[in-house]
Amino acid sequence: MAETFVLLHGSWHGGWAWEPTAWCLRELGHAAYTPTYPGHWPGANRAGITHDDYVRSVTDFIEQRDLRDVVLVGHSFGGSVVSRVSQVIPGRLKRLVFHTAFVVADGASVNDNFPPDQTDMFAQAAAQSPDNTVACDWQVFRDLFIQDARPQDARSVWERLVPQPFQPWEAKLDLAEFYRAGLPKSYIAVAEDRALPEGTWHPGMSSRLGPCKIVHMSGSHEVMFTRPAELARTLTEAAHD
Amino acid sequence: MAETFVLLHGSWHGGWAWEPTAWCLRELGHAAYTPTYPGHWPGANRAGITHDDYVRSVTDFIEQRDLRDVVLVGHSFGGSVVSRVSQVIPGRLKRLVFHTAFVVADGASVNDNFPPDQTDMFAQAAAQSPDNTVACDWQVFRDLFIQDARPQDARSVWERLVPQPFQPWEAKLDLAEFYRAGLPKSYIAVAEDRALPEGTWHPGMSSRLGPCKIVHMSGSHEVMFTRPAELARTLTEAAHD
Amino acid sequence: MAETFVLLHGSWHGGWAWEPTAWCLRELGHAAYTPTYPGHWPGANRAGITHDDYVRSVTDFIEQRDLRDVVLVGHSFGGSVVSRVSQVIPGRLKRLVFHTAFVVADGASVNDNFPPDQTDMFAQAAAQSPDNTVACDWQVFRDLFIQDARPQDARSVWERLVPQPFQPWEAKLDLAEFYRAGLPKSYIAVAEDRALPEGTWHPGMSSRLGPCKIVHMSGSHEVMFTRPAELARTLTEAAHD
Repeated sequence: MAETFVLLHGSWHGGWAWEPTAWCLRELGHAAYTPTYPGHWPGANRAGITHDDYVRSVTDFIEQRDLRDVVLVGHSFGGSVVSRVSQVIPGRLKRLVFHTAFVVADGASVNDNFPPDQTDMFAQAAAQSPDNTVACDWQVFRDLFIQDARPQDARSVWERLVPQPFQPWEAKLDLAEFYRAGLPKSYIAVAEDRALPEGTWHPGMSSRLGPCKIVHMSGSHEVMFTRPAELARTLTEAAHD
Repeated sequence: MAETFVLLHGSWHGGWAWEPTAWCLRELGHAAYTPTYPGHWPGANRAGITHDDYVRSVTDFIEQRDLRDVVLVGHSFGGSVVSRVSQVIPGRLKRLVFHTAFVVADGASVNDNFPPDQTDMFAQAAAQSPDNTVACDWQVFRDLFIQDARPQDARSVWERLVPQPFQPWEAKLDLAEFYRAGLPKSYIAVAEDRALPEGTWHPGMSSRLGPCKIVHMSGSHEVMFTRPAELARTLTEAAHD
Repeated sequence: MAETFVLLHGSWHGGWAWEPTAWCLRELGHAAYTPTYPGHWPGANRAGITHDDYVRSVTDFIEQRDLRDVVLVGHSFGGSVVSRVSQVIPGRLKRLVFHTAFVVADGASVNDNFPPDQTDMFAQAAAQSPDNTVACDWQVFRDLFIQDARPQDARSVWERLVPQPFQPWEAKLDLAEFYRAGLPKSYIAVAEDRALPEGTWHPGMSSRLGPCKIVHMSGSHEVMFTRPAELARTLTEAAHD
């Protein structure tokens, strides 16, 4: 069955990051869309970008194309956007898929899910930037995000990352309706994801979803690059009960 | 006196097009901002982009930075965005400047200002595209838009142009409040602008503004590239009575 | 066995075009490199770029990284670069793979392989450009190059294409040593490739290779986008006898 995937990227990334996987999904016969949040283009103005802006950019994207029965997928930070988008246009969505992604508690922020010393470090970096953004550290990215890639391939991805607006991490998110509503959900747990301390993604985040389909795969936080064909097949599996 | 300029680009362009002029304005001691409309990044999704999206992106941009006493400048198509933005956040604006730009009549569209055969040609091109966009023709650009540049320089600009979403040209614009309100206005008339038939920009468009300051300069439709320092000085002059 | 692939792109493209397939090759455990010819970056100066420049950029790329036992792959026009590179650094190459690619006769040009009326049309377009380049027509690309993609996905690829320097198509190529030498070769024949008249790629081009491994797959000229996982597997198969 041909699905309609809308693939939401994480912090620092843009829609480009989903492209290898998106082409693999298209190869399997599905439609795949890879929107980019405002402020995530190279050279974009990033000052003042909010979590609301992200959410609105995605709901606009889906409504402008009149997409229906959407399988809405969020990677990493993108999970927080999936949850909020689902509250605005539930009628257009068929299923929510959290791909090694944040499931934020009602009233909490993405930041609340980082180890406190990390949050402090990020806040400091944002305060020292002119546009309230945080850059992604090369060694952290190489060793904890994409440790399954050759260093030069890791580097080529890292060079495309953009500074992350900080407000979307800080914003306390009203997610009451997300937790009340009954949209089917899946969580893709990636075995060697070291971007957060062990157990944080799964079962930490995933257990907040309540009853949902858990799909497992191997690899790092960035399997969208290092295992695009497998991730495409895994997404297809995560798209139904 | 240091002004705060927000410079809105025209069709096919992005904020990058204002950069040389913006740096010349900064050299003169002013603040200059060059937002890019949604759908105008390279690789952006352009399907479904509307004139409303443009307006909202600009009002968001100004509000997120809490800009005040803004001199809001529109180039070409950007004039239609200036007019509509002025209806939403008049309190933040000090003056509107139309730089060889569209001044659309209340209830009309940008398209209504093109010669009819041109509108038909554009509509056909949009219909043949998958995302309702119109590409900019190289020879038209070279000969009628930027005829005062060397061909290779013209080409390097042309290569950065993106397909223009068609809806913002087609949209009938409610501009009643723009014509009622009393914000000070200037029109920069460029002597050799051939992008539209002679007299269309000035006095055609400019006369719709009613009492306003008219500032003249030489050059093509694209003096933002071919005469950035002169345009910066002209903008400074256009910024006050 | 882990191979080292160097993937050469065709006309109008850049190394980015190989990325989905390159990530699929990496997923299979191989190393994959995707160099971009000079003049093929967005905004690059393209005037005066020659076939020699392409060849030298690839030999430099391989030597600077000290790559050995390389499986050198050329897509489309890239086949002409593969042939010439093989004459310069044969000792670093393990095998040549022509992926629905040009195999140019000794002393001939890429142009000599187009239908004559098409060559004339291209020559005219180059002459009318300021930098001796030829743009890729949207409808040709959609209908004859990537007809197996959704139109909007085709468009997103087409928007990244750059004007093609004309000299590399026109240059008469000395390929005597290529035809003398005994490097193992493979040809990937793609069943529905319509970029050239039927039979031109295979057996037209492929038969010039003499004894070689022929591998077949389905799809268009642009399976690097539309079938990246399958193309990666096919390349792996084409990499050995």
